[in-house]
Amino acid sequence: MDGLMMDQPLLLSGLLWRTERLFHDKKIITRVGQGQYHSYSYADYAKRVRRLASALVDFGVKPGDRVGTIAWNHYRHFETYFGVPGIGAVLHTINMRLFPEQQAYLINHAQDSVLMIDADQVSAVERLVEIGIPSVRAFVVMGEGPLPETSLEPVYSYDELVDSGTEDFQFPTFDENTASAMCYTSATTGDPKGVVYSHRAMVLQAMCLAMHDKLNMSESQVWLEVAPMFHCNGWNIPHTALLQGATLVLPGVHPTDGDYVEMVQDLGVTGMNGAVTIGTMMRDFVRASDRKWDLSSLKTMWLGGQAPSRAIMEWWERTFGTHVVQGYGMTECTPQICFNSTKSTLADQDPEAVYALRQTGGQPIPLMKIKVIGEDGTELPWDGTSVGDFWVQSPFTASEYYNDERTKESMVDGWFRTGDVGAINEHGYVIIKDRSKDLIKSGGEWISSIDLENALMAHPKVREATVVSVPHEKWLERPLACVVPSDDSITEDELRDYLLTSFAKWWIPDSFLFVSQVPKTSVGKYNKKEIRAIFADGGVSRVRERLA
Amino acid sequence: MDGLMMDQPLLLSGLLWRTERLFHDKKIITRVGQGQYHSYSYADYAKRVRRLASALVDFGVKPGDRVGTIAWNHYRHFETYFGVPGIGAVLHTINMRLFPEQQAYLINHAQDSVLMIDADQVSAVERLVEIGIPSVRAFVVMGEGPLPETSLEPVYSYDELVDSGTEDFQFPTFDENTASAMCYTSATTGDPKGVVYSHRAMVLQAMCLAMHDKLNMSESQVWLEVAPMFHCNGWNIPHTALLQGATLVLPGVHPTDGDYVEMVQDLGVTGMNGAVTIGTMMRDFVRASDRKWDLSSLKTMWLGGQAPSRAIMEWWERTFGTHVVQGYGMTECTPQICFNSTKSTLADQDPEAVYALRQTGGQPIPLMKIKVIGEDGTELPWDGTSVGDFWVQSPFTASEYYNDERTKESMVDGWFRTGDVGAINEHGYVIIKDRSKDLIKSGGEWISSIDLENALMAHPKVREATVVSVPHEKWLERPLACVVPSDDSITEDELRDYLLTSFAKWWIPDSFLFVSQVPKTSVGKYNKKEIRAIFADGGVSRVRERLA
Repeated sequence: MDGLMMDQPLLLSGLLWRTERLFHDKKIITRVGQGQYHSYSYADYAKRVRRLASALVDFGVKPGDRVGTIAWNHYRHFETYFGVPGIGAVLHTINMRLFPEQQAYLINHAQDSVLMIDADQVSAVERLVEIGIPSVRAFVVMGEGPLPETSLEPVYSYDELVDSGTEDFQFPTFDENTASAMCYTSATTGDPKGVVYSHRAMVLQAMCLAMHDKLNMSESQVWLEVAPMFHCNGWNIPHTALLQGATLVLPGVHPTDGDYVEMVQDLGVTGMNGAVTIGTMMRDFVRASDRKWDLSSLKTMWLGGQAPSRAIMEWWERTFGTHVVQGYGMTECTPQICFNSTKSTLADQDPEAVYALRQTGGQPIPLMKIKVIGEDGTELPWDGTSVGDFWVQSPFTASEYYNDERTKESMVDGWFRTGDVGAINEHGYVIIKDRSKDLIKSGGEWISSIDLENALMAHPKVREATVVSVPHEKWLERPLACVVPSDDSITEDELRDYLLTSFAKWWIPDSFLFVSQVPKTSVGKYNKKEIRAIFADGGVSRVRERLA
Repeated sequence: MDGLMMDQPLLLSGLLWRTERLFHDKKIITRVGQGQYHSYSYADYAKRVRRLASALVDFGVKPGDRVGTIAWNHYRHFETYFGVPGIGAVLHTINMRLFPEQQAYLINHAQDSVLMIDADQVSAVERLVEIGIPSVRAFVVMGEGPLPETSLEPVYSYDELVDSGTEDFQFPTFDENTASAMCYTSATTGDPKGVVYSHRAMVLQAMCLAMHDKLNMSESQVWLEVAPMFHCNGWNIPHTALLQGATLVLPGVHPTDGDYVEMVQDLGVTGMNGAVTIGTMMRDFVRASDRKWDLSSLKTMWLGGQAPSRAIMEWWERTFGTHVVQGYGMTECTPQICFNSTKSTLADQDPEAVYALRQTGGQPIPLMKIKVIGEDGTELPWDGTSVGDFWVQSPFTASEYYNDERTKESMVDGWFRTGDVGAINEHGYVIIKDRSKDLIKSGGEWISSIDLENALMAHPKVREATVVSVPHEKWLERPLACVVPSDDSITEDELRDYLLTSFAKWWIPDSFLFVSQVPKTSVGKYNKKEIRAIFADGGVSRVRERLA
């Protein structure tokens, strides 16, 4: 017996329908210069989104066509978030920080037909044309003022394109499983892999984020989206803000740490999300600044990519009353798998235990199923200590990679193998020990690089730390620590003694390299692959030299 | 181009999967006597739900079979909420307050194969068997102790049935459009009409309620479900509480106003939902009680069925800091259409304007579309004054009534005609003026019975008031007011003068009848149909006599 309910698909345009009627007076604010902001209402936003959609149809963009973007976080980029999927086309957000060859690979693999790029990306895209991106039949430049001089051909102004459309455009209705967006994620080996999102997945993910009381994305929030909008749809946060009618703040082109701090104070930002390094850099900026900053409007700082250290959590809480939260997500999951909040029944434990909980990836969000699989393929108990691979399943988890043979390595019996390793405790808190590719297997026993990193970063003289696996003759693998000190008086012995208070002797890294920077990936995570490659190239001394 | 996301259906068993893993230590508490409670964890709940599901399968209940319940709000009834739909069967909650003939009609129309009933309903159900309910092939009695003496045959003990099942039962996976539950709603004329919910509709509705920051159904809530669980799945609130891991409090059999008050104080209840009369009766109980009550734990009181008066809102806010909220829903919408919260941009108006907003039905919840249609069939603007019929569309709105010819009167072009009349303001707040069947059309102009009722109920000497349309020779229809005084010194002239300060002369009811009670429907709304019938039977004097 079927239910007798309307067959109404979950479409992104459905979210917009409500927002423009209920929250038309709420604002989207983009930083356009030092202390300068472009601000317009969701009503104006929705009109421009419909103009854009109508212009794209007139332009010949068909359902299923891929439209690429190479852009910063700003209102025009956000218009493409609803304008492109609204007509059944697919928004392909391209990572701005990749090398040209990698960007060209993505564009060719996705077969983008139109590229929408920021004005400051024009010369970089000219380079892509030289490499060869034959599927692209038009370039659209987003920015103020006249089109820059360029060899790109044909090239259009984004604002003129929008102006050519009609704001009366009606979004078509189609199946909710229609592709809405795509995003590539780096692979352990080989080229990046493409994930194709559906309208259903993105609407459901936004709803699951919206219902999280600790993220608290409600109408009254003023939310600063620092996470790049080219990465997993900006963690799906712009959609969630729009769904709830929150004020959305976008940092515009080339923002600095100081710009983030200034935006929070100027605009009374109440919540923000970004990579862990953003929280660290904002802290360092405030500490070093001559001005006295009041960031106490900021109640929620969601830091992602890796676990924020306890030191960072405590500094923000103590200094501005800001609650630092984290989650666990990946491109393949639209992106959240877990989100961390302290259950009311666990909040009355001693502070150490609460912090330990807060440093986990959190509990699976609604609709998300997770299990932990041991080396022998059996499901392990949720006891907080049994370590295995995390497998996940949900309506917003990828079922395959786009045109990619590697799908079969990641999908097993309807579950997605995350490639992450860890345990789950009895309350469903997911404790991530490592990416399986970053695991350190020393003398047959494994060592968690993440546990060591978290401990090192909690040391008062440490600013950043990463621990990687390097080859070893006797033990096969051993940990190597790269540490960015915040105090030059730090010594190797000091760190070794400090770690010995928490870890067994054989866990302690053989070398502690004091370096001035840890290489990061294009989305701000520690780039362990690069460190391992430098090590392979010349050992400890080469790493010390390259990261000096 | 399709998205490449997993085809994971939205099933009620999926919500349970998460709750029993993440919130297993949270509690479901049922009142079982004066100050006495049955309390068990979601872990124990989930085990019993799986035992129930397995036992029903063994019992021969097949996917699509209807399983009826006639029961109060308690943990056994709540077990059927997930146990029955979990195996693909359909939970048919039957209104306990209907006449036997009506209940028999529902059971026969739905073709219930099993009836699960409370022990205190046994003799009533024996009467149903006399009337004839041939589809029912087994009766299951929920309650403590041995089975009561009964002619029902075959009859089983619910607890024994549950004990016979296995807690290792695995819920099957099926299409999310599968029927999960059904509920009948009274019709203007003729028999009640059946609404068949799907798993998809109920999961989406629960998610939309969960993401509402003013309802604030979060993990830390202790939620008292007063709304009957036989009515629209208890407004879908039990599912939302389970989804979020909130503590759920159920008032058990034959609860009184004093029981509700006691439960709030005893258990530290933080939120509750029930008919408007519950809020009034609890207030009256507290006022009349010799004891001093502290209900300040109660932050949210959601009153439904009709609009709570400003007097009630103010009393709760002033006395206990309780925020009274309302929504707009109906059986056909699973059930919420709108929920009321004050937008941050409207909160700084003068208090009168904020109260006026709070007395509307609120804004459409996510995924819900609404429009207002004028007499000529055109869509009217959202200007707060253009009055027409509300039409709605959503994934949780009925597309048809179950086996019912009357579907065609209610469904137009993929929209459901609610039968309610009103306007929508520029921020999407839905201002309900009347049920179309309750509209008063006097001399070609219409009068809102709801506006008059709200005004009357704000008068300090009025406890309850309803206004109905009665036939009139010259004007065709005129308003008649039935008023339950809270102060016997009240006079007709006093009320007339009072209304004249807000309404045109021709809006003022011709008669004000002071009565001791207003008849209510089985779900606690004012029964205007009954008052009109009494009037038809003998005019004003007959109404005065019958409601004395």
